[in-house]
Amino acid sequence: MKLFYSPASPFARKVLVAAHETGAISRLETELAAVTPVAPNADIGAANSLGKIPTLVLDDGTGLFDSRVICEYLCSLAGDTALFPTSGDARWQALRLQSLGDGICDTAVGLRYELALRPEGQRWAEWIEKQRERLNRTFTQLENEIAGQVGTMTIGSAAVACALAYIDFRMPELEWRSGRPALTSWHETISARPSMVATVPEG
Amino acid sequence: MKLFYSPASPFARKVLVAAHETGAISRLETELAAVTPVAPNADIGAANSLGKIPTLVLDDGTGLFDSRVICEYLCSLAGDTALFPTSGDARWQALRLQSLGDGICDTAVGLRYELALRPEGQRWAEWIEKQRERLNRTFTQLENEIAGQVGTMTIGSAAVACALAYIDFRMPELEWRSGRPALTSWHETISARPSMVATVPEG
Repeated sequence: MKLFYSPASPFARKVLVAAHETGAISRLETELAAVTPVAPNADIGAANSLGKIPTLVLDDGTGLFDSRVICEYLCSLAGDTALFPTSGDARWQALRLQSLGDGICDTAVGLRYELALRPEGQRWAEWIEKQRERLNRTFTQLENEIAGQVGTMTIGSAAVACALAYIDFRMPELEWRSGRPALTSWHETISARPSMVATVPEG
Repeated sequence: MKLFYSPASPFARKVLVAAHETGAISRLETELAAVTPVAPNADIGAANSLGKIPTLVLDDGTGLFDSRVICEYLCSLAGDTALFPTSGDARWQALRLQSLGDGICDTAVGLRYELALRPEGQRWAEWIEKQRERLNRTFTQLENEIAGQVGTMTIGSAAVACALAYIDFRMPELEWRSGRPALTSWHETISARPSMVATVPEG
C-alpha cells in the first residue's frame, strides 16, 4: 500500500499517527506529494479524482480516501479496537471528537489558503474574521471537554492533537493555549507519544 | 433527538435520506436552520462550536456531527447493516464512495460561497476554474465506476445521489450528465427512491 502525503498536512499526519499507534506503519509505503487547490498532482489525480492528500493506493490499484476512511481501514487491518471503538458511546465520542479535530483542520487549512495562496487583493476580511472566531470557539469547546480524556488515545484525540499542532505550525498568532490550561496540558501529554514525535512536520 | 438542517444542504439531505431508508426518521425532530460561513447561528453554535449543519442534538444535550457521524449513528440506532456494511470490502467501498460524494459537495458548496456570497471583486478566477475541473474529473470517475452499483443503496450511493442533485440545484451549468450515460441512468433510478423523493429541496 502506498500513502500519498505531505508532512505539513494535518489530515495526513493523523493517518500516520494512527498507523504508528496500531503498527500498520510497517505495511505502509509513503510518497511525498505536494498539492494545493490550484496545483493538482497527476499521480494523486489518477488514484483520487478529488486530487487531495492523504490518498492511499491499495495493492490492487484502488485509491482509498479521505483521511477518515484511510484511518479506519488501516486500524481495521491492524486489528485495532482502541482508536476506533467498535460500538456504543465510546465509538460516537471518538468519531465526534475526530469531527471537531477535522473541523479545526478544515477551517485552518482554508484560512491558510486564503492568507498565503490567494492573491492579496482577493482576500475577504469578514470571512477571515469569522473563521478565526470559529476556531476560537472550538478551542474553548475542547478546553471544556478534553480534561476527562487525558491518556485515552482514540482517532478523536489523534485528530485534535494533529489539529492543534497544525495551528502551532501555521498560525501561532491565534494563541490557542491562552486561557486554556486543560487543553494545553492535554496537548503536552499527547504530543510526547512516540506516534506524535515521529510525525512532527519540519519547520 | 433534534436535527438542525437546511433543505438546501446536500450533507443534511444525506442524513435525511439515511434516516428515511432505515426508519430512523420516526425518532427525529427536525429544525430548519440557515447558516453560512459569515452568518453563524447561535442555536447551532451551542451544540457544535464549528457552527455547521447538519448537527444532531441528542436527548442528553450532546451535539453530534458531522454528517458522516450522524448518518452512522442513526443507522446504528436503527439496526442497519446495509447503508453501513459492518466490515470488509463492502464497508470500504461504501465509505470510499461517500468520500467521493462528500468531496463533490465540499467542492461545490465552496464554489457556491465563492460565486454567490463572496463580494464580486474578491473572487479568484483561477481557483474557481480548478474547482470546476475537480468536479468534472469526479463526475467522470463516477461514470467509470458507478454502473456496477445500480440498485445497491449504501451511504456511498446516498452521498453521491445528494451531491449530484445539489449540482442540479445550484450549478446546472456544469452539465454533469453530458457524455456520462451510466451516471445519468444510475441517478435517475436512485432519485426515484422514496427517501430521495421525500427530501427534494424546494427551488
